[in-house]
Amino acid sequence: MKIIRSIKAMQAYSTSLRRKGRTIAVVPTMGCLHEGHLTLVDTAKKHADSVIVTIFVNPTQFGPKEDFSKYPRPLRRDMSLCRKRGADAVFTPSAEEMYGTGATTTWVEELRLSQGLCGKSRPIHFRGVTTVVAKLFNATLPDVAVFGKKDYQQAKIIQRMTRNLNFPVRIVLQETVREKDGLALSSRNSYLSQDEKDAALSIRRSLLSAKSAILKGEKSTARIRKSIVNGITSAGGRIDYVEIVGADSLEPLRKISGKTLIAVATFFGKTRLIDNIEIQNRFEKD
Amino acid sequence: MKIIRSIKAMQAYSTSLRRKGRTIAVVPTMGCLHEGHLTLVDTAKKHADSVIVTIFVNPTQFGPKEDFSKYPRPLRRDMSLCRKRGADAVFTPSAEEMYGTGATTTWVEELRLSQGLCGKSRPIHFRGVTTVVAKLFNATLPDVAVFGKKDYQQAKIIQRMTRNLNFPVRIVLQETVREKDGLALSSRNSYLSQDEKDAALSIRRSLLSAKSAILKGEKSTARIRKSIVNGITSAGGRIDYVEIVGADSLEPLRKISGKTLIAVATFFGKTRLIDNIEIQNRFEKD
Repeated sequence: MKIIRSIKAMQAYSTSLRRKGRTIAVVPTMGCLHEGHLTLVDTAKKHADSVIVTIFVNPTQFGPKEDFSKYPRPLRRDMSLCRKRGADAVFTPSAEEMYGTGATTTWVEELRLSQGLCGKSRPIHFRGVTTVVAKLFNATLPDVAVFGKKDYQQAKIIQRMTRNLNFPVRIVLQETVREKDGLALSSRNSYLSQDEKDAALSIRRSLLSAKSAILKGEKSTARIRKSIVNGITSAGGRIDYVEIVGADSLEPLRKISGKTLIAVATFFGKTRLIDNIEIQNRFEKD
Repeated sequence: MKIIRSIKAMQAYSTSLRRKGRTIAVVPTMGCLHEGHLTLVDTAKKHADSVIVTIFVNPTQFGPKEDFSKYPRPLRRDMSLCRKRGADAVFTPSAEEMYGTGATTTWVEELRLSQGLCGKSRPIHFRGVTTVVAKLFNATLPDVAVFGKKDYQQAKIIQRMTRNLNFPVRIVLQETVREKDGLALSSRNSYLSQDEKDAALSIRRSLLSAKSAILKGEKSTARIRKSIVNGITSAGGRIDYVEIVGADSLEPLRKISGKTLIAVATFFGKTRLIDNIEIQNRFEKD
């Protein structure tokens, strides 16, 4: 497995693969890899001849009070996991390599889908995400990029950005990978105490019971929201948001109709956890 | 010469060239081609095996009161000029093809170099330029892109954007092409009456005399500016701006030092004309 640290070397490697007619899939990550990421690698292998995993803790998507400096960076372990899972290359540039010594003055910004949900509580987050993903696409020159649905809003924004800017990249979305008890895998789970972890199961439990209510005919987003808020707060979680939105528009729904997404962001202790569930209206085909 | 109207077909054509090991240069234009554009094609041919000219009057870089609808679009003539000059392909998408039927919600924006000069009087202009150039890069997948120095600020912004976003594209800048009498070639010159054209020669004349004063040791940007303003207004021009800036930073200079750019934007009649001159400080080597 190749380990590549410079943009020029990354572009040269991808260009040489392309010259040989090989297709490339990229899996952008911030490292601290878990089974969710590694399943993205499996998916990537199904869609292209070569798989590049990028590992870069992107400073521009963290707010000033967020966990950039303490975000875990077990790089040697991550590389070993990528190798075992069959990645062809890991691209792991430094912040200087990605952003230069002077400030970056060019940003890629999606202005519609990024307004609600996490965009409200993390105002610069998605601008950082779209900018770094554009940069990673230009460094790795992929045919396919694979993202997980746990970061559902991020995935939709990247899909839109890719289409709007004509990037010749197909975006593949993958279902969230969970612990057996239902907790969505996240690098931030490592911040949780055992008690917090147990309490955080209320997220999935509340989302499943909301889905079941909707499939039984519940239409009131106010009632659904209230029951999710109750489920999570009574377990000791603090709500950042619980939103019920159109699964493509990400616009809040007043009544359930069409393909729906329920997205939640919560704090257990100091740790911010997000999760979501898609619900296909039972009168429409999946 | 290929004529290509869809993004998918453009990407497929460029990808097939690249598979054959051919390098690609792109010359982005809004059409209404003159000898300035065609010299860009000559330059492009020196830097790559295949040359693609894009012709697209980009709506997002025109302000609401600007000349988008009346901007000249002699497409058949333009294509014939490209063919004669030896372009391999013309990419001429519709606005629908480039921006879709819904609104584009993703923008590429450079926030430093785009603040002064034309950025002041045309607030959304450069955001439109950087966005469409990113889209054109992703459609044509070039190794090299050639821009003219007549649009000096635009060229510098695109250079910065290309580097900041890691586009694998080398930017080549070309000197401004002029009429024998010194008027910079521009598609907008076709709006000028003969009298306005004669009066507009005051732009180049004032810039040359400013350069000569600087080379003789003049350091006061206030005096230089005043003499240019006088030269242009006494010929009947109206000043949008006359700015004396660092040639790389585009930041206003109080005293001449280092490589300097004088940039002007003027109106003759209703027609907005821009021009500029670079001045290498005589104590530094060119």
